[in-house]
Amino acid sequence: MVRRLFLLRWTPLLFAQTDEVRALLKSSEEAWNRGDLPAFASAYEDSSETTFIGREVTRGGTQAILERYRRTYPTRDAMGTLAFSEIAIRTLAPDLVLTTGKYELKRTAAAGGATSGRFTLILRKSAAGWKIIHDHSS
Amino acid sequence: MVRRLFLLRWTPLLFAQTDEVRALLKSSEEAWNRGDLPAFASAYEDSSETTFIGREVTRGGTQAILERYRRTYPTRDAMGTLAFSEIAIRTLAPDLVLTTGKYELKRTAAAGGATSGRFTLILRKSAAGWKIIHDHSS
Repeated sequence: MVRRLFLLRWTPLLFAQTDEVRALLKSSEEAWNRGDLPAFASAYEDSSETTFIGREVTRGGTQAILERYRRTYPTRDAMGTLAFSEIAIRTLAPDLVLTTGKYELKRTAAAGGATSGRFTLILRKSAAGWKIIHDHSS
Repeated sequence: MVRRLFLLRWTPLLFAQTDEVRALLKSSEEAWNRGDLPAFASAYEDSSETTFIGREVTRGGTQAILERYRRTYPTRDAMGTLAFSEIAIRTLAPDLVLTTGKYELKRTAAAGGATSGRFTLILRKSAAGWKIIHDHSS
């Protein structure tokens, strides 16, 4: 019974969470595809605790994240065209979600060729909206 | 002030969290190194919502996780000797932590050779203790 009341009370919140996080991912995808790395990096929480695990570990705010992306994708061609798919959003707490999915990057062979992988994001809602506090991409 | 009170109230809890999660990882490492995959898999939450992202995505309880490990590490030699390092534990909520770290597997060349990578774990404390609800290893 406690569980059912809890779910009833949370249901509208959970739908809102999912919609908001999907909107953030859509907006990140669009930022990437217009070559706007600062806007893409702004989806991350600007905190020294923010972490990104790729081939190496990046720790720091949006500037550190931005520099990491600029190193990894130095030209517009290297960025290619990004598409997210298989997005799954799991509520951890009212202000905290786990999001997993697949990323695909279409690129010319000269720019590194097509690539794809999977990501785990932990997002927290703050006054600034939903922000990624941890990213593990592989 | 609210923040300081919050931190004061949480401090003992956070130390306990860290100790408990470190103990779980130690115990997982030991289970692996005695070739006990069922004990290793028991660190995961036995829930259809549990996810493991490796080269592919595994979704399901401890049995699904166990089968995934048995496929990937079919023999005791393939399992090698596991060591975790660079463990960082971040509190997300009183019953929820984000743990990141590095894994290293020592193996003979015949068994696949040494390998290493990074992991992201989300752990939740339930009546059964801390359990991994999501693992992304790369």
